[in-house]
Amino acid sequence: VTPRPTACGVITLLTDFGASDPFVGVMKGVILCHFPEARVVDLCHGIQPGEITEAAFWLERCYAWFPPGSVHVTVVDPGVGSERRIVGGAIAGHFFLAPDNGCFGPGLLEASGAEFRSVELDQLALPAPSATFHGRDVFAPLAARLASGALRFVELGPRAEPLPSLLGAPVLSGERLRGEVVTVDRFGNLITNLDASAWRSRAVSQVSVGPHCVPLRRTYTDAAPGELMALINSFGVLEIAEARGSAERSLGSGRGTPVELTLSAAPHARG
Amino acid sequence: VTPRPTACGVITLLTDFGASDPFVGVMKGVILCHFPEARVVDLCHGIQPGEITEAAFWLERCYAWFPPGSVHVTVVDPGVGSERRIVGGAIAGHFFLAPDNGCFGPGLLEASGAEFRSVELDQLALPAPSATFHGRDVFAPLAARLASGALRFVELGPRAEPLPSLLGAPVLSGERLRGEVVTVDRFGNLITNLDASAWRSRAVSQVSVGPHCVPLRRTYTDAAPGELMALINSFGVLEIAEARGSAERSLGSGRGTPVELTLSAAPHARG
Amino acid sequence: VTPRPTACGVITLLTDFGASDPFVGVMKGVILCHFPEARVVDLCHGIQPGEITEAAFWLERCYAWFPPGSVHVTVVDPGVGSERRIVGGAIAGHFFLAPDNGCFGPGLLEASGAEFRSVELDQLALPAPSATFHGRDVFAPLAARLASGALRFVELGPRAEPLPSLLGAPVLSGERLRGEVVTVDRFGNLITNLDASAWRSRAVSQVSVGPHCVPLRRTYTDAAPGELMALINSFGVLEIAEARGSAERSLGSGRGTPVELTLSAAPHARG
Repeated sequence: VTPRPTACGVITLLTDFGASDPFVGVMKGVILCHFPEARVVDLCHGIQPGEITEAAFWLERCYAWFPPGSVHVTVVDPGVGSERRIVGGAIAGHFFLAPDNGCFGPGLLEASGAEFRSVELDQLALPAPSATFHGRDVFAPLAARLASGALRFVELGPRAEPLPSLLGAPVLSGERLRGEVVTVDRFGNLITNLDASAWRSRAVSQVSVGPHCVPLRRTYTDAAPGELMALINSFGVLEIAEARGSAERSLGSGRGTPVELTLSAAPHARG
Repeated sequence: VTPRPTACGVITLLTDFGASDPFVGVMKGVILCHFPEARVVDLCHGIQPGEITEAAFWLERCYAWFPPGSVHVTVVDPGVGSERRIVGGAIAGHFFLAPDNGCFGPGLLEASGAEFRSVELDQLALPAPSATFHGRDVFAPLAARLASGALRFVELGPRAEPLPSLLGAPVLSGERLRGEVVTVDRFGNLITNLDASAWRSRAVSQVSVGPHCVPLRRTYTDAAPGELMALINSFGVLEIAEARGSAERSLGSGRGTPVELTLSAAPHARG
Repeated sequence: VTPRPTACGVITLLTDFGASDPFVGVMKGVILCHFPEARVVDLCHGIQPGEITEAAFWLERCYAWFPPGSVHVTVVDPGVGSERRIVGGAIAGHFFLAPDNGCFGPGLLEASGAEFRSVELDQLALPAPSATFHGRDVFAPLAARLASGALRFVELGPRAEPLPSLLGAPVLSGERLRGEVVTVDRFGNLITNLDASAWRSRAVSQVSVGPHCVPLRRTYTDAAPGELMALINSFGVLEIAEARGSAERSLGSGRGTPVELTLSAAPHARG
């Protein structure tokens, strides 16, 4: 049995609230009311409005870079005010809080020892929440109380299975491995759901992005300025980039664009 | 008499400095020089340049979500370098610092026990400020010293009346209650100055936004994707939203667009 | 000999990562893993992608507003993954970490007692870094360890000379002082590399921005709305601004636009 994590006082926030409104600031105010010593980190607020898959991708790729015992709060919540549940997770030494809307990716759902609980709002002594801002009224106080140790994980509610991930897995069909662009970063890099582990033992003979073929490189500096390339990025997935430029702009691609690898039949020779 | 607040070490920042320049970061540096243990929260830096009413709206709607004794700094200051005053406030258990330019809304100006003081820069042992960045040279050090307890509120200067609020109140005329859009959030929701308390005892028979009529709903999920609605948002005011879309885009509306409620003559029947 | 700074626990981050991706958040996670008490300040993440000169400008104009002993991390790093070095600096009571790509401006390179060291990655017990995200894999852990005192500055590696600054100095030719716009802020103000000290003893008879002439003022409020002006801004350099407007938009100017001062032959008479 994996022991449950011990709270370390760190809370991360992952939302689609953007950078221009006071919603994130107000959440932090509520957190400080419940837990004055909280250390709150903005993981990302630039998720496109309502894009659960984008949040799911970054959540499972980023959480492990934080101290064990962190509380990771995801609020990409187009269903706020409806009957959708809220779930808590204790996974790989970290805590999670999110609407139950598919934002736990396969890397979290299938982690060894992962435990999920359905949040029982009636039992948690919260003031009546507003209909439209559970980030402030539910997630912030619960995260603060989990992070401070005032609320134990098992007190969130009964065990539950979250909804399946909205983050699609790549599909292997013969020598074709097909995935898609899940997010585009500030540099115009197209980041896919193609985890390098999916073809670790086979060589890649071709990478195609929509109708375009791009060569596989190791770093952004392995191509001349303006050249397109694919590489395994620092989060372990295939990324399409343009050296000193924007692949998004040059290719006219974005979220949802199909990306396909052609694998050689034989294992990739090493070293 | 309302007792004056006791500083709790939290400072919030509300500015029109945006997210791309180092101005906010430098203010935090100065705060840390004066008060190394300060806990600084970005309330919002996305106020449109010089839009005092937008700042006034968010300030009075957000401050109470922070711990009592917080210092709330507002720097939307098109008059920086001119002779405009700076005022401090002690209101409802919180401290405030702002240029005296109308950024205190009616909810703050009229709060029971509200006390305002005109900041006497000459008496406060500040280095000579620059002509263009009082956020760094005046507001940051004063906020830090207030928040740390090194400076007492009464030491800011003599009692004073701030300028009237630039945030207009809705106008009731017979059965029409007329207000306007004061800010638009990241989701394209149009947020008005129509506080729900203004018609609490009467039913709403119609909501119009410019020439458009929209139905009144409870949450974003009470309409089909693409449908427009009005609702009372989590800050207590009327908001025009589009389910899974942007009301701003669909209606071509923005700050200043008139929004009008038609109220029924009789009090609203309550369940 | 200038004594080396003592770490104060503050870390600032200056990057071109923007506000919409989780890269900055992940760096903070790594910092907290190594140094739970770190106080991390976002100096600025809005540097245009790969624009080293913009970062160099803000770094040397901003660092001194932070507490002595701060660790200032700059990650504008188009050469990540190549053989470019990483350098540490101990300058004027502060620490610095950056890729060796010209991002130390003349104000830092030439500071009295400035000491630079070439970071020896092999000697610093770091896990093997990814090829594309040294902000997370190298800069964050080293900054945390420097800021906590766990790593001493001299342990970074041997003394070294950084590459020359990419930030150009203004050119004085007779009575003409010629510089350029190095960054444009959120308000559309055009900020130049023309430090006021360069003409301190001489009067300015004309300021030209590309083909336009603008008058020299003291503050933004010394001109009527819509009027263009030049002023010495709060960072000590010449700035072209429009009162209550955007000089960038009105002039169609941006980074790289030449700005020229015509100086009078005689010293400026002082009051």
